[in-house]
Amino acid sequence: MKGKIGTAVEPALERRIRDSFGRQGLMQHLGAAIDEVRLGLVTIRMPFRPELSQQHGYFHAGGTSAIADSAGGYAAYTMFPEDSSVLTVEFKINLLNPARGDALEAVGKVVKSGRTLTICQLEVFADAAEGRSLVAIGQATLICMAGRPDTPESAR
Amino acid sequence: MKGKIGTAVEPALERRIRDSFGRQGLMQHLGAAIDEVRLGLVTIRMPFRPELSQQHGYFHAGGTSAIADSAGGYAAYTMFPEDSSVLTVEFKINLLNPARGDALEAVGKVVKSGRTLTICQLEVFADAAEGRSLVAIGQATLICMAGRPDTPESAR
Amino acid sequence: MKGKIGTAVEPALERRIRDSFGRQGLMQHLGAAIDEVRLGLVTIRMPFRPELSQQHGYFHAGGTSAIADSAGGYAAYTMFPEDSSVLTVEFKINLLNPARGDALEAVGKVVKSGRTLTICQLEVFADAAEGRSLVAIGQATLICMAGRPDTPESAR
Amino acid sequence: MKGKIGTAVEPALERRIRDSFGRQGLMQHLGAAIDEVRLGLVTIRMPFRPELSQQHGYFHAGGTSAIADSAGGYAAYTMFPEDSSVLTVEFKINLLNPARGDALEAVGKVVKSGRTLTICQLEVFADAAEGRSLVAIGQATLICMAGRPDTPESAR
Repeated sequence: MKGKIGTAVEPALERRIRDSFGRQGLMQHLGAAIDEVRLGLVTIRMPFRPELSQQHGYFHAGGTSAIADSAGGYAAYTMFPEDSSVLTVEFKINLLNPARGDALEAVGKVVKSGRTLTICQLEVFADAAEGRSLVAIGQATLICMAGRPDTPESAR
Repeated sequence: MKGKIGTAVEPALERRIRDSFGRQGLMQHLGAAIDEVRLGLVTIRMPFRPELSQQHGYFHAGGTSAIADSAGGYAAYTMFPEDSSVLTVEFKINLLNPARGDALEAVGKVVKSGRTLTICQLEVFADAAEGRSLVAIGQATLICMAGRPDTPESAR
Repeated sequence: MKGKIGTAVEPALERRIRDSFGRQGLMQHLGAAIDEVRLGLVTIRMPFRPELSQQHGYFHAGGTSAIADSAGGYAAYTMFPEDSSVLTVEFKINLLNPARGDALEAVGKVVKSGRTLTICQLEVFADAAEGRSLVAIGQATLICMAGRPDTPESAR
Repeated sequence: MKGKIGTAVEPALERRIRDSFGRQGLMQHLGAAIDEVRLGLVTIRMPFRPELSQQHGYFHAGGTSAIADSAGGYAAYTMFPEDSSVLTVEFKINLLNPARGDALEAVGKVVKSGRTLTICQLEVFADAAEGRSLVAIGQATLICMAGRPDTPESAR
């Protein structure tokens, strides 16, 4: 580990994370935004809109897991060397409760940061008028692609 | 099991599946469409657009897993009683190769159909000019909500 | 939820858990023992022996996951009705660090206790001369088999 | 990929796999044996004994997943360079049916063989008087430890 999980990060690192997130077309398309960037800990928020629903009108599990995956990926990325990029190897998610509310918040947290692989725990909360509830938990494995810039090939 | 996986389904069942899919705001928002509905086997197609990308310009793992999740859910749903609905309990996905190409195709296939729980295998392929490749494999657990209509509460 | 996770349980319930564990031939064969039984929280300990090793001489991932699975199952079972039994639907485990040391300790903790399904988080620690380390984390889905005694059919 | 999955392997490679398996104390302790070694495909068999049971008298999920994990690990290892060793990064398993019968057979099959990571599909079958049934399916991620011998440190 290269520091205590949850501590503040340098502005330059935070900018790098937010720039990379800004290049994720899907996150913009879902209306998701990075809330907080800390060392090994990233939070993403996604307000409800009908475009995010499943057949009962709640958040679709696919959206829930998309922001969980991104939160885990960027949490890992805060601990990677500067000239690298991050890819998801795999993730698993349990959907605990119907994801209904005004917004979802996904928290990705690094549990083990290795040279090649990083393991994160994922949590997704729903904020509703009646309070906050845990709607999903997950685990993700991320890989550090050393020496590979975090930009499209066409943009290099 | 209530029939052989992959056989044709009644038009009424296919309509029920397509209607439910049509109520999934997220699937419309991602530009995904059901390709094929067979007993315990559903295929979903999603053409590439920049709104589905991750930071390198490929399909985001979140979109890949969203259509994989839906394909598994509807594959399970083809084997459920008429007055029930389907929810994802959990899923796990391994991202094998960069998801680049003109379109992704997710295949959900029932491996075990029980009264309460159904287990599916998930595959996602990328179709590109240079051919078709397997980009993700997964497993999902679905639950049958007996006696719960597959519509929003507000619409009943 | 039927109480606060981690609180003390009635002696009768603790006895029921320990009796069931005592009927798990595999746990005896691995030399594993229940350490603690709390509401929704069960700890299992397994001292090292060469019979538990993989090819490098550390604990085999199969043993690590066997006690993690049992810890999750019994954690769930503490919250089930008396005339029921528990089965594992699925679990996922990430092996974070080499599992070497004098003993492993698996902790299963209930995150969501539903009528049919219960979701647990799993942690496995290794105790070694140089200290304690987290060697694995997991998630498990358990199902409550209502009205099914927790004994072999032949013994009823 | 370095050849077609399921084809025959050189005797020297098969010997290397069987020797490594022979060093897994846990596999011997569970009475498990390698049945077949093919390129990217390994089968392990484990006859029933009361020492492998859970509380209802069937095979314990921990034993089922232990042989599934080993089958996946050795399937991956058939495709690794000679001076390397294999470690399980993570695996996930769905238990589909009660694992009862005279023996279990786990099949590990490589789906993607990369330089660093290999992904396998896992299946476990139960052989009983009334026939063969699929009792579990899983997915595993394995890592190739280049330049690390497949033996205990003390034996080098």
